[in-house]
Amino acid sequence: MYRFTNDYSEGAYPRILEALATTNLEGNFGYSNDPHSEHARQMIRAAIGQPEAAVHLLVGGTQTNAACLCAFLRPHEAAIAAASGHICVHETGAIEATGHKCIAMPAAPGGKLTPQAVREACAAHPDEHMVKPRLVYVSNTTETGGVYTTAELEELRAVCDELGLYLYLDGARLASALAAGGASLTDLGRLCDAFYIGGTKNGALFGEAVCIVNPALQPDFRYIIKQRGGMLAKGWLLGIQFEELFTGGLYLEGGRHANALALRLKEGIAALGYGFGSDSISNQQFPILPNHILDQLKEDFHWEVTSRPDGENTEIRLVTSWATKPEAVDAFLTALAAAQ
Amino acid sequence: MYRFTNDYSEGAYPRILEALATTNLEGNFGYSNDPHSEHARQMIRAAIGQPEAAVHLLVGGTQTNAACLCAFLRPHEAAIAAASGHICVHETGAIEATGHKCIAMPAAPGGKLTPQAVREACAAHPDEHMVKPRLVYVSNTTETGGVYTTAELEELRAVCDELGLYLYLDGARLASALAAGGASLTDLGRLCDAFYIGGTKNGALFGEAVCIVNPALQPDFRYIIKQRGGMLAKGWLLGIQFEELFTGGLYLEGGRHANALALRLKEGIAALGYGFGSDSISNQQFPILPNHILDQLKEDFHWEVTSRPDGENTEIRLVTSWATKPEAVDAFLTALAAAQ
Amino acid sequence: MYRFTNDYSEGAYPRILEALATTNLEGNFGYSNDPHSEHARQMIRAAIGQPEAAVHLLVGGTQTNAACLCAFLRPHEAAIAAASGHICVHETGAIEATGHKCIAMPAAPGGKLTPQAVREACAAHPDEHMVKPRLVYVSNTTETGGVYTTAELEELRAVCDELGLYLYLDGARLASALAAGGASLTDLGRLCDAFYIGGTKNGALFGEAVCIVNPALQPDFRYIIKQRGGMLAKGWLLGIQFEELFTGGLYLEGGRHANALALRLKEGIAALGYGFGSDSISNQQFPILPNHILDQLKEDFHWEVTSRPDGENTEIRLVTSWATKPEAVDAFLTALAAAQ
Amino acid sequence: MYRFTNDYSEGAYPRILEALATTNLEGNFGYSNDPHSEHARQMIRAAIGQPEAAVHLLVGGTQTNAACLCAFLRPHEAAIAAASGHICVHETGAIEATGHKCIAMPAAPGGKLTPQAVREACAAHPDEHMVKPRLVYVSNTTETGGVYTTAELEELRAVCDELGLYLYLDGARLASALAAGGASLTDLGRLCDAFYIGGTKNGALFGEAVCIVNPALQPDFRYIIKQRGGMLAKGWLLGIQFEELFTGGLYLEGGRHANALALRLKEGIAALGYGFGSDSISNQQFPILPNHILDQLKEDFHWEVTSRPDGENTEIRLVTSWATKPEAVDAFLTALAAAQ
Repeated sequence: MYRFTNDYSEGAYPRILEALATTNLEGNFGYSNDPHSEHARQMIRAAIGQPEAAVHLLVGGTQTNAACLCAFLRPHEAAIAAASGHICVHETGAIEATGHKCIAMPAAPGGKLTPQAVREACAAHPDEHMVKPRLVYVSNTTETGGVYTTAELEELRAVCDELGLYLYLDGARLASALAAGGASLTDLGRLCDAFYIGGTKNGALFGEAVCIVNPALQPDFRYIIKQRGGMLAKGWLLGIQFEELFTGGLYLEGGRHANALALRLKEGIAALGYGFGSDSISNQQFPILPNHILDQLKEDFHWEVTSRPDGENTEIRLVTSWATKPEAVDAFLTALAAAQ
Repeated sequence: MYRFTNDYSEGAYPRILEALATTNLEGNFGYSNDPHSEHARQMIRAAIGQPEAAVHLLVGGTQTNAACLCAFLRPHEAAIAAASGHICVHETGAIEATGHKCIAMPAAPGGKLTPQAVREACAAHPDEHMVKPRLVYVSNTTETGGVYTTAELEELRAVCDELGLYLYLDGARLASALAAGGASLTDLGRLCDAFYIGGTKNGALFGEAVCIVNPALQPDFRYIIKQRGGMLAKGWLLGIQFEELFTGGLYLEGGRHANALALRLKEGIAALGYGFGSDSISNQQFPILPNHILDQLKEDFHWEVTSRPDGENTEIRLVTSWATKPEAVDAFLTALAAAQ
Repeated sequence: MYRFTNDYSEGAYPRILEALATTNLEGNFGYSNDPHSEHARQMIRAAIGQPEAAVHLLVGGTQTNAACLCAFLRPHEAAIAAASGHICVHETGAIEATGHKCIAMPAAPGGKLTPQAVREACAAHPDEHMVKPRLVYVSNTTETGGVYTTAELEELRAVCDELGLYLYLDGARLASALAAGGASLTDLGRLCDAFYIGGTKNGALFGEAVCIVNPALQPDFRYIIKQRGGMLAKGWLLGIQFEELFTGGLYLEGGRHANALALRLKEGIAALGYGFGSDSISNQQFPILPNHILDQLKEDFHWEVTSRPDGENTEIRLVTSWATKPEAVDAFLTALAAAQ
Repeated sequence: MYRFTNDYSEGAYPRILEALATTNLEGNFGYSNDPHSEHARQMIRAAIGQPEAAVHLLVGGTQTNAACLCAFLRPHEAAIAAASGHICVHETGAIEATGHKCIAMPAAPGGKLTPQAVREACAAHPDEHMVKPRLVYVSNTTETGGVYTTAELEELRAVCDELGLYLYLDGARLASALAAGGASLTDLGRLCDAFYIGGTKNGALFGEAVCIVNPALQPDFRYIIKQRGGMLAKGWLLGIQFEELFTGGLYLEGGRHANALALRLKEGIAALGYGFGSDSISNQQFPILPNHILDQLKEDFHWEVTSRPDGENTEIRLVTSWATKPEAVDAFLTALAAAQ
């Protein structure tokens, strides 16, 4: 059985497990008030080129998005996101549960939110009978594998500045975006009010590092983390994991590995004559394959179905990760060729 | 430096770390839809004697309390808790953040909530201009080390039945309560509508197992977990840890170890002539010691200050855990004797 | 100046003002615990043919929608509504502020939500990573003047029964819908789980009567009203107004008057050769008129702009009410003819 | 039957009803965007001596408190109030429903919150594991009839400045406080960050005027009002009522009338030898009377029971208002004397 279901089917880089074992009994203060967490925060501030940024380590992505948005927004303020955005679809209304509406705008190809869509969202919400758009939410990579370039984020930053909006970036799959040539960590530090660097989907057991660059958004964030149940008692577990990810380029390495295998999948599938629902250069690929072929493959391979364009074909999502083995990709391509 | 600061200063039982390493690359479905989690749930259902209970594995205690209370209560319904209760004091208003008031009642000795206090809370909230008491929150052990006996929980259950209230038990330190002869796991299964079995403070890296016994409270709890950011992507990490804790009596062993050392501290301190702010039989001890002695001890030992009864003495909290070493206790008692 | 801006530009039927004056000093218990409110509730239960319905009198529509939805839904449950629905657009995120997502579905002509759209909304939310659709929100008339027939509501009821959804109807403009031949009050009583009968837009100073027919949704609703700041201290003011509205057919009379004038506007405008953005048989009309003509009319008439289909024409909304004078309609038509 | 139950048993000053009748059909823009509301706001700004204050007219007190506190506070911030404060007891958890904890402190005599209690509340909430005190809530008069003097509010202001807290005053019974010689309207304007002037309990059908003096708290408050269902469609009804209340001293006159009759009750009851649970100089009196006497009086007089100090006596609350007739007071005193 080969899993292309997602990028969180395996545990962590062995190096991370070793570090956890080595430090297991050293004794640390709780709640991220420990030297590992402080060191990790410093490493991240350096990596994003923002020595004054506030960095916080949380366990998971939904928790991180909800904590950030409820910390940053007043009750009547809303987030603008692509309709396919994670907060709009896959977080069980976590943002609404904090009281805030997500304004869902049609996504451009690649699942991206455009400056034009941001403008339209604001234009459609002109007065106090409607929520007030206040924050632009993008994810990088997007839910359909899109990668924001530096230029694209600069354009979003410009429209945010013009319209008085915060720019927030969900980096659950940031390693893949970085490895695919998307906006760099220092670009994110320069352009976003806040963003998070995802660890869960790139080789940590868990962990997301929120970087709050805008000083106005920094105060009291630890209160919000705690109130929302996101403050890990043994916070050094997060610190140690990010120390490892940001040592020796491990973080980027995971993205490169995942992307390389995803592109091998993409090329191999294309070479067999199949199309894709989305043109992705990152670790998620969305081939459209005949149902009768998928029926043959499904005993040996796992994936998610993303749409059914017609009665005979299905668009599936194949995800690679830091842990995907090249032989899994080869096996898939071989099986696909054989099934034709 | 010896730490009596809390019971979450170290990582996990080595056996747990080994299990995580062994399974690291086995590949699992996410979100606790994996065999380890299912096995752990079965073990816990068996341990509490409730084969129909819903069991869910979450990361931390504040998250667990907030998820449960917001799942169980309608908007106008409130929890009754001892004023010293964790939800009243130490969760940054997490319950209020879900919209619910915590009715704080004076605690009996040991930090316990009495049936009489529950009755008074209900009597003081007779109509729709006030919140409606609906859930009784207790923690076992309590925040001051108190241990609920089976009889005490039976009395609380009776008053809950009489007044139409749910009984919810926060088991962050349940191992210590069990080891101290408090109400057993099957008692909890029989008497509580819901409760959680704490892993974080008893040898897991993290993890709390919620047991929802009352069928009326079970539906859709996974939606609530997800919405509140509590659904761990790599959910098997929780499953594996609880598998270990409930294999070979490890869970109870941790409580016994912690209690034994706590009682050794208690007896040693008492033998030196000092009193206690609270008469605890569990893993938290609250000696009242002269300030000039604490000044001598503080370079080698860590604790928390819980109150300052007068200008010359301070009540401190000493916490032992599954990881506390006997030599730490001996060192403390030796240093205390020497400082007299 | 003639106002077609909305249907709440004037106070109340003189009969209502007289009743308020007559009873001004009679002395009443507060919070709707008075004989007038009780009488009004009985009248409404009779009018809807549901002697066991719970009826509550609230001040305004947004308050009523938010109170109902937060009372009826658990935290992870969502409402399905037409994208043009009032709760989706014009209530400043009041529903989201109670924690619930509004799933916006494309509206059918007339702003109506179809059973098919309800099915699609449910199909798109299959698991716990998404909110759980639980309530269908419709407004009658709709925001674009559409009127639900009995048959249409029966179809919605059927899909709700099939999919386990509540059916909730916002009757801010119910008088106009009733007068236009839409589903009757007894139909609403039979088909909806809950709905409200709007007074503000039909001749009351303020006031909306919520009818909760489904017994499962009735408990403790007064707590919710009070918690949300909707319990009027001098509740008899609401009772007296609904007593008047439901005496001698006054409620329906207002809808008939408004509709008759709206249709006179519609016919007159059509006779002059203009089209409409929406084919309405109720008290809101949406003519598309040349900008240069609107420029001439705007000094004497007030309206709202609803869209700008092209650079030369504008769709406006003309609203009539119980208080609109026939001469206002005549003046508009005359001026429009003259401006051509 | 004479009612001393509360100060909202009657409708409105006849002058107010006349003004509503006179303006009934004049036609106005909705949502307080009308000349009456603007005029009322200007009158209030003048009365409080704060020409830059934001003034908003809302329907009721619970709504007003909840709108203000949720507008002013971030999610982790809490209000400090006397344990007997209206938000702590009688608003069905409305503040908690917006996510904020109310820190209940023991009240000083008269139901007042002292600077010392404020300091203690802050000292007890030192870090991010607890809510962050951010706003001091007082009511004037208090729930037990206490009246804050200018000096007392100045002291509260000083402690708020020192500790970084907002000072918010609930003026549901402000007319009585003003008439009793409490802090003046200009004092409130000078000392409070925000407060409201109560109309409902002083001769309006309904209506509370929020004055937000602190510019940092002013932005976007209309969004909050709308989101919370507090924006009255026919907003001019509020404007007209406050125009009347602030014309010719009507507002203060109501307080004077109520207080004079309350003091006549107090003196008469004291002259008959009875004591009081609270020494009030405002429109609420709390005599302690023998149960056998109350049994005789209860057929002709209405009151609320506030406590039962022993088995033979009961503390009741007698409330007078702008509408109380002197003969009601005389009748009570006569009946009390006769029952001895």
